[in-house]
Amino acid sequence: MTIGTLPQEQPQERKTPPWNNRVLEKRATQLALIPSAWHLPAHLLANPPASSIDTIRASGILSTDELVWTETADIRDLVELVKSRHVTSESLTTAFCKRAAIAQQVTKCLTEIFFDKAFKRARELDCHLMRTGEVVGPLHGVPVSVKDRFDVEGFDTTVGWVGLTNKPAKCNSSIVQLLESMGAVLYVKTNVPQSLMMSDSYNHVFGQSVNAFNHALISGGSSGGEAALLGSGGSVLGIGTDVGGSIRVPSNLQGLYSICPTTGRVPWDCSFLHQHYLIPPVAGPMATSLATTEYFMESLLSSSPWNVDPSAVPIPWRKELATPRAHRKLRLGVVFDDGVVKPQPPVVRAMHETIDALRAAGHEVIEWDTSLHIAITNLWTKGILADGGQHCRSLCKIVDEPLVEGMVVGKESDLLSHEEREQFEATKLTLQTAFLKQWVSSEIDALLMPVLPWVGYKPKTWVKSKQWLGYTAMWNLLDYAAVTIPVARADRSLDSVGSGCNAEWEGHSIRNESDAFNYLQCKWLYPLFIAFGGIE
Amino acid sequence: MTIGTLPQEQPQERKTPPWNNRVLEKRATQLALIPSAWHLPAHLLANPPASSIDTIRASGILSTDELVWTETADIRDLVELVKSRHVTSESLTTAFCKRAAIAQQVTKCLTEIFFDKAFKRARELDCHLMRTGEVVGPLHGVPVSVKDRFDVEGFDTTVGWVGLTNKPAKCNSSIVQLLESMGAVLYVKTNVPQSLMMSDSYNHVFGQSVNAFNHALISGGSSGGEAALLGSGGSVLGIGTDVGGSIRVPSNLQGLYSICPTTGRVPWDCSFLHQHYLIPPVAGPMATSLATTEYFMESLLSSSPWNVDPSAVPIPWRKELATPRAHRKLRLGVVFDDGVVKPQPPVVRAMHETIDALRAAGHEVIEWDTSLHIAITNLWTKGILADGGQHCRSLCKIVDEPLVEGMVVGKESDLLSHEEREQFEATKLTLQTAFLKQWVSSEIDALLMPVLPWVGYKPKTWVKSKQWLGYTAMWNLLDYAAVTIPVARADRSLDSVGSGCNAEWEGHSIRNESDAFNYLQCKWLYPLFIAFGGIE
Repeated sequence: MTIGTLPQEQPQERKTPPWNNRVLEKRATQLALIPSAWHLPAHLLANPPASSIDTIRASGILSTDELVWTETADIRDLVELVKSRHVTSESLTTAFCKRAAIAQQVTKCLTEIFFDKAFKRARELDCHLMRTGEVVGPLHGVPVSVKDRFDVEGFDTTVGWVGLTNKPAKCNSSIVQLLESMGAVLYVKTNVPQSLMMSDSYNHVFGQSVNAFNHALISGGSSGGEAALLGSGGSVLGIGTDVGGSIRVPSNLQGLYSICPTTGRVPWDCSFLHQHYLIPPVAGPMATSLATTEYFMESLLSSSPWNVDPSAVPIPWRKELATPRAHRKLRLGVVFDDGVVKPQPPVVRAMHETIDALRAAGHEVIEWDTSLHIAITNLWTKGILADGGQHCRSLCKIVDEPLVEGMVVGKESDLLSHEEREQFEATKLTLQTAFLKQWVSSEIDALLMPVLPWVGYKPKTWVKSKQWLGYTAMWNLLDYAAVTIPVARADRSLDSVGSGCNAEWEGHSIRNESDAFNYLQCKWLYPLFIAFGGIE
Repeated sequence: MTIGTLPQEQPQERKTPPWNNRVLEKRATQLALIPSAWHLPAHLLANPPASSIDTIRASGILSTDELVWTETADIRDLVELVKSRHVTSESLTTAFCKRAAIAQQVTKCLTEIFFDKAFKRARELDCHLMRTGEVVGPLHGVPVSVKDRFDVEGFDTTVGWVGLTNKPAKCNSSIVQLLESMGAVLYVKTNVPQSLMMSDSYNHVFGQSVNAFNHALISGGSSGGEAALLGSGGSVLGIGTDVGGSIRVPSNLQGLYSICPTTGRVPWDCSFLHQHYLIPPVAGPMATSLATTEYFMESLLSSSPWNVDPSAVPIPWRKELATPRAHRKLRLGVVFDDGVVKPQPPVVRAMHETIDALRAAGHEVIEWDTSLHIAITNLWTKGILADGGQHCRSLCKIVDEPLVEGMVVGKESDLLSHEEREQFEATKLTLQTAFLKQWVSSEIDALLMPVLPWVGYKPKTWVKSKQWLGYTAMWNLLDYAAVTIPVARADRSLDSVGSGCNAEWEGHSIRNESDAFNYLQCKWLYPLFIAFGGIE
């Protein structure tokens, strides 16, 4: 195991950047927090299987029980195990810490590691249960991971910036406070891209997170470390944040269920505040089962987060809306292609399989008119860039750190004046109103669409992809809730270009630069990712 | 009846401003919309009683039935009269139009008048009820007034600006659309101060609104015309807006119940958007009874406003929170004096009477620590001025109209840069969190405090009063709901300065300029307003 190589933005000059030692120290500290018994054997580390799950199973570091617990998808089963005293929180926490430690070695999914704090907390919870016979809350004794955008008192909130290392948070973010009051055990924070504004999680401090299922590909972003950890089974529930796709993209790439809720549902406050008034970020759960995400939402909203976070809206989890009513046929909208970037064949196939299954079950599915989507996405971009890059530049300045190349950051010319901001708000309301009208008049229960038009990228490719974020970002501008649901995996026989199965794809006329990149990517990426078993 | 005199900002030079004709035309048009049969007799107009209610009763223009209907406080009684077909909507609408027309002649409470549209609508509703036996909605056939900040298709949304006259709205605001879908009859819009940023409603277009109970004093603002209309019995339910006290101040001055809700409860959208992202405005009901405000909220929230307004939050009216539970003792906080401007004797007496009554009923009342209030109010001021006055200047420019003298408008130095706005948002969240902590830890059910530290002003005095808006504005920054409740009237024998009843007031040490103005005002204003019977 190595501390890792330093970032690639510098090597042209081959000079050691002034913040080099700071990064090396941070990484050394991080590495030292993993007990040596949990270090992967040299042969596995040198040549690990493509998937971290295979690596973890092959490592021999986890017992059979520990493997079973950490591969449990429904968090309620783990809560029940602890509550019924079949398993202590300490044992469960140990299992997840081991698994997270191994996942970190192959995917670089973690930032802050605080196993000792977690063990102490787990023992306290075990004592409490033994002494009182009562659980502390609905997550009693179960480890939960959080993205390195939230504050955990005493640990850095680096958010991928060298300049923010060694500045331990003075207090907990509301969500951390609430998770603890619900009985959760916090043990790690997870990796992100510099500035949170990429769908590829790498930064100068902690390096490149890669995909749990296929280390040759990215884990997505900005909650990419979180998704790689969850995809590795190193966590059963993680809290991510999303301002344009940051929960949904990595969830999609690691086959996770997730909820990107509307504003005010899940507390998102932290010391790293930025630009949250034009496009407000939201926090939400990521997990390997729908049941876990729903249990989290229901439990959180029963904990009156509005008594802690002034931005939280006092609406309980409306279970009746999330419960299928017998014999009620749904009316669903569907988008196969938003008209800007044509989704790659596995995505289109997944959509068709889903729609066919829904229709076979008697539900009505109508094609959705996407004519408003471009204007909405373009306004989102304007909002995201509205600070003209000032925030990132000021973070760079702390230690003279460079920006990650190709990252979406505002230029001076993007800075909006007061009047332009007022105009922005007016246009936003107009678009929101028009979209609401379309939604209400169409009488749909939900809209189904791809999370992404692509299925995988090699590291540091996304920044060159002329990214079109329309499939995710528009929902942030509109402030609509979005749920990701894994429905299919890419399949060599069904999706291969040239196999004759995709005449429509092969005959596609390129529409724009983003579409061109997405289209051409298949030629070389497909064989690679299909060889590795594909990405959900 | 005259069209009124032109504004007083100009007369120093005695030049006719270039927009003079535009104003004269607008006023002439407005006057022509009042049928001559509803013009006050010359002797009454020349020398009306202090209160518009007395004027209306003395005018002989309304029948006994019409007087009874228009003096009904609970809107449910009017809905029932129409629903049970004891009174047609047309008759009821006529009664309110008459009364509004008279109120306008003595208080200048109106801007747009559309009686003809109202009669047509009322007849349609009557036909519908007769034909189907069904009401259109919970406000079937009852006239409702709205502040001249909302758009009614085909009529101006002048908001007190000459430059916005003769620009009829192209569509209805969401609240107007919803009121109509609930069966309401719209008939007038009500007067406001130029820019909405004063607690005194006068502008160059429609002139000075005065108090319904005492024409020598102001009606308040910015929903001052609305309150004067309601106080005159010219409306049973009005919709105002509030960004710093604009619903509550005029409600307080005219003895009204009102709800200034949290954001997202009542749609507030209109074509006159301004600065709504730093301190968001809210809309809410104003009425002569608590029952009417609650019936409106419950009815509105049963009408799914979130299907029309994208900013509306899908929370129904939580009747259980508004219903007293038997034997449940409340724990209430109270503020008699925020430490900045000491409230005048009638206000303090009203607070003491209220608290004494609550304690006698067994409720617990604790004094509230106001140490956070100044910082919250100061941040509110920063947010309100954050555009550096650009919006007002651009509205002035349309016809070269001057700003109202003394009005609170940002200067260039108040304009916040992008970074300052981020800092503003961060500070806001910090203060909101600190206040929430105080609220939750004190375990209070509600906080009682004066709406204002003063009880009345002569026209155009408020702008000179070194206004301290802390009693109302802080709730907008915090985004807390506030309700006004009239509990007492000023009383000569109890409140007169020098009567020996107010030793505490007489021994008060002046704290600052605002406090000085408020204190000294009693010397000359008290005799005046007590002579007129006082203000609630």
